Amino acid sequence: MKEKQISNAVIRRLPRYRRFLKELHRKGVEKISSKDLSKLIGYTASQIRQDLNNFGGFGQQGYGYSVANLHDEISGILGLDKDYKMVIVGYGRLGQAIASYISNNEPKFHIVGIFDVKQIIEDVEFKDAQIMTCGSLADFARKEKVDIAVITVPTEKAQLVADTAVRAGVKGIWNLTAVDLDLPDNVVVENVHMSDSLHALAYYMQKQEQ
Amino acid sequence: MKEKQISNAVIRRLPRYRRFLKELHRKGVEKISSKDLSKLIGYTASQIRQDLNNFGGFGQQGYGYSVANLHDEISGILGLDKDYKMVIVGYGRLGQAIASYISNNEPKFHIVGIFDVKQIIEDVEFKDAQIMTCGSLADFARKEKVDIAVITVPTEKAQLVADTAVRAGVKGIWNLTAVDLDLPDNVVVENVHMSDSLHALAYYMQKQEQ
Repeated sequence: MKEKQISNAVIRRLPRYRRFLKELHRKGVEKISSKDLSKLIGYTASQIRQDLNNFGGFGQQGYGYSVANLHDEISGILGLDKDYKMVIVGYGRLGQAIASYISNNEPKFHIVGIFDVKQIIEDVEFKDAQIMTCGSLADFARKEKVDIAVITVPTEKAQLVADTAVRAGVKGIWNLTAVDLDLPDNVVVENVHMSDSLHALAYYMQKQEQ
Repeated sequence: MKEKQISNAVIRRLPRYRRFLKELHRKGVEKISSKDLSKLIGYTASQIRQDLNNFGGFGQQGYGYSVANLHDEISGILGLDKDYKMVIVGYGRLGQAIASYISNNEPKFHIVGIFDVKQIIEDVEFKDAQIMTCGSLADFARKEKVDIAVITVPTEKAQLVADTAVRAGVKGIWNLTAVDLDLPDNVVVENVHMSDSLHALAYYMQKQEQ
């Protein structure tokens, strides 16, 4: 398939395109030129056309892009036309914030189970998802055929939790801890390293001052 | 200065180098070759040498890199040898998680003020930082010469909060909301878009299955 050759850089830009298109759609905008999209999104019009041409291009000369179509096409490319079963492991403040965010904003990602240590789970609840101790993670993930484990446990527990999830058949790890995980090649890991982003901010602030 | 020409891609890798070096240092490792660093960090040895040569290179032929030196050099490049005054605007679960994370892991970033609506701030506290209503943000930021505003308010309030902070002299915005902000060129914005990361995860999981 042609899509296989698309660079990581392009893939990384797609969620951003989709985000702006979703907002345009919400505002009732039906079509948009690459030029107007450029003003909005901050990439050049030429970059936008080139990016979208990777997927066959969805625009028509002199008309622009259909906002709804382009949004749906990008959703399809990203795999957001499917549903994912998700567990959240670590239900401290970050885990709770993430659970609430996903539940309100990400309809294709279904939180089916939440795991933490006993002291924490006794005080919390979450809509339809069961809340369990971490000891139940393996059995639960296997039985429910969980696709994604979101990891927000303390750093020293992260690798153990990831290993457990992977042995139970989980194919994607969304890692919100500060450590990098060592996992088999057939498992996809996506890291959100808060500090990396903060340090890049510091760098660019310093450059701005010079 | 030579550093000015360094690509964003290299800059984005530096926090990752630093993170691994910090961990090596914690473990008592004093020196490391680009080859061993490569195994650990997942970039090729050649990529590592090339990246670090951008800054003059800190390695010695046949010796490798001094872990502590390289860590400190990268910290300096990133601007982490300075101190930053920071406010957190939005003190829901995400704001609380971030405040706790920064306070425990980022000694150069000092949370001096926390802002939210009245109902929320009545129930919370946070170490040495004052907790105030958002109405006090402008005066406080100006008086305290705040460097960075961390924004975790609901999306529809994000632009207003950012504008207020910028008018009060804030030079860096760490944006943890789902919207992109429109700000003057002399203000540095760093976004953590949770969904973008989640959607990239979905993409790579789908590719893995094919």
